[in-house]
Amino acid sequence: MEIKIAKRAEEISPFYVMELLGRARELESQGRDIIHMEVGEPDFPTPEPIVSAGIEFLESGNVHYTPAAGLPALREKIAGYYASQYGVKISPSRVFITPGASGALLLVLAALLDSGDEVLLSDPGYPCNQNFIQLLDGKSRLIPVEANSNYHLTAELIEKNWRDCTRGVLIASPSNPTGTIIDQAELEKLFSSVRSRNGFLISDEIYHGLTYGESAASALELGDELFVINSFSKQFGMTGWRLGWAVVPEKFTKVAEKLSQNIFIAAATHSQYAALAAFEPETMQEIERRQAVFKERRDFLYGELIKLGFSVPVMPDGAFYIYADCSRFTDNSYQFCMALLEKEGVAVTPGRDFGLVGQSRHIRFAYTTDIKNLAEGVDKIGHFLKSGGK
Amino acid sequence: MEIKIAKRAEEISPFYVMELLGRARELESQGRDIIHMEVGEPDFPTPEPIVSAGIEFLESGNVHYTPAAGLPALREKIAGYYASQYGVKISPSRVFITPGASGALLLVLAALLDSGDEVLLSDPGYPCNQNFIQLLDGKSRLIPVEANSNYHLTAELIEKNWRDCTRGVLIASPSNPTGTIIDQAELEKLFSSVRSRNGFLISDEIYHGLTYGESAASALELGDELFVINSFSKQFGMTGWRLGWAVVPEKFTKVAEKLSQNIFIAAATHSQYAALAAFEPETMQEIERRQAVFKERRDFLYGELIKLGFSVPVMPDGAFYIYADCSRFTDNSYQFCMALLEKEGVAVTPGRDFGLVGQSRHIRFAYTTDIKNLAEGVDKIGHFLKSGGK
Repeated sequence: MEIKIAKRAEEISPFYVMELLGRARELESQGRDIIHMEVGEPDFPTPEPIVSAGIEFLESGNVHYTPAAGLPALREKIAGYYASQYGVKISPSRVFITPGASGALLLVLAALLDSGDEVLLSDPGYPCNQNFIQLLDGKSRLIPVEANSNYHLTAELIEKNWRDCTRGVLIASPSNPTGTIIDQAELEKLFSSVRSRNGFLISDEIYHGLTYGESAASALELGDELFVINSFSKQFGMTGWRLGWAVVPEKFTKVAEKLSQNIFIAAATHSQYAALAAFEPETMQEIERRQAVFKERRDFLYGELIKLGFSVPVMPDGAFYIYADCSRFTDNSYQFCMALLEKEGVAVTPGRDFGLVGQSRHIRFAYTTDIKNLAEGVDKIGHFLKSGGK
Repeated sequence: MEIKIAKRAEEISPFYVMELLGRARELESQGRDIIHMEVGEPDFPTPEPIVSAGIEFLESGNVHYTPAAGLPALREKIAGYYASQYGVKISPSRVFITPGASGALLLVLAALLDSGDEVLLSDPGYPCNQNFIQLLDGKSRLIPVEANSNYHLTAELIEKNWRDCTRGVLIASPSNPTGTIIDQAELEKLFSSVRSRNGFLISDEIYHGLTYGESAASALELGDELFVINSFSKQFGMTGWRLGWAVVPEKFTKVAEKLSQNIFIAAATHSQYAALAAFEPETMQEIERRQAVFKERRDFLYGELIKLGFSVPVMPDGAFYIYADCSRFTDNSYQFCMALLEKEGVAVTPGRDFGLVGQSRHIRFAYTTDIKNLAEGVDKIGHFLKSGGK
């Protein structure tokens, strides 16, 4: 007799890009050079001051558990960052250090969702969000968003889609896959609409600090009764360190503490000590330098994709993604991406991973590789298109 | 209007020891010396070869994501460890590296449990286990276990307690809080009883390698169709590194991969590189030395507690805990522990955190501090008892 796999787990969608990546690795092992424009991870190493702080801590050898909510000194530094960066005063007791933003999202959703509770999400959006909700037997309602709202949810869409079982809204800005930033006045209207329905707002801000026009505002500028997810991964080049945080309303600090103790025990201690150096002036200067590099890449890739005939209705002002409409070339972006990999050795992510509506006519390009590689990738895409795009 | 806390989260029980710990910290901040015999974490630093491997990796600065299931080299080393330590051949593809055993348990339970599914657990047992089940809207059925089965579940207890909604059994050996090891012949009967009901067995083996008589056998010696949870935390002195693993049946590798990608992205990269040094001969020698120290402490503390009049019906042969019956002195172990802290400055964990039955007449003593401290603690407990134990 066979042990049964849980329905909850069966229904979690796989990352379709994994199939493409598997094929990319296969080709690489056969000696092919692959240009990677699919990677959702900065190509920069962790900034030197953070690494040094990590090494210095490890040299003590004393890698014991921290308190469940995180190192008090790190919670204070994060609270200080909200003051200096956004002009927002929050108590460090509202900051919970977690294993990545993944941990933060699990923590917040576990504190908010009961079985059958529904969350509104944008389509396109980051696929894991739905899967966390599925893990907790909640329901995701994907709402198609368009260029007219920078590919973000609006108060109007919330009002139109809110149902009895709806409990709240998750937004992510800058967005993965679109790289677009939500307008703060729109966010304010959205927040007030959510609050008037007694709902919750979760604001995923993991791509803050990676913006190429105006800085993104934090949802915390609108009030205290909301949840923010953030991470050291993208902005501070600390992906492999697995360190993120959640900011919760005062009322939720007790339950967040209890959940942290039980689900995580604590985030990794050496990562937390290393992250103490993230907000130092030396690190922040390095982060700014990288931001300038990403901006240059964004400008280059955006220009080239437009020249090639892709359509990008809203300038992506953050993260390191361009979500391009490829309908001029194909009505099946998945096949297009697989063929592009096979023929030209360029890996990009088909829209399929990011939603249901419009996915077959979109591709996500990541500029997590240098301009030389991007230029070579663009050339090869041009060649692919000239030979029919198949 | 207030945002509602999820029922699932409200119902997760807090760690009662936290209140006691809070008071202990308060006393310490007032200048009192506290003897800590409540800590569930080895007092030893991480072994030098592991720390060095971690530092060496960090010096590369290249702390990017690993594959979701973990570094292939580490999965292979763990598979190799099952071969050398237990004589069990498993494919590395069945090993999933996770953020601590906490991550491993979440991964396995998420793959197995749907809402309302019941898991059988021993009372007393580790409290987080129930809380993970609660997080997933499952049900825990706590089954009182006695000295006659080394405080472990038996085939007979499984048969008596199995119901329509029961899906499986979780055992932990050596056990927290009792430190006792399940008899392998009993485990075999239990496993066969579970399998005949088409149920799952999860074997929590995080205290393996911390045994003071015969080594503990792995449940994997009984077959492949079961789940093992393990961790680098206790045996390898890597608590703060947050690194564990799960071994799953072949059928579950796909779903475990999908869940890992979504819930964790991956375990911490630097912790994984460091852990590659865990199975080196130099580290294993250090682990053996520590095992000898723990055994000496166990022998000392066990003897002293018996002399003081506590009752410990089964010799605890593993972990670093003694679960002592204090009914000769009190029928309220929680009050007893609070008074012991207040009067004598000795922190121990009341039974309350570990179950429902018999909790008020039990205390967990941890020997995660050196013999000098243990001796001082024992003296103070003696003094406390002489002055009436209140």
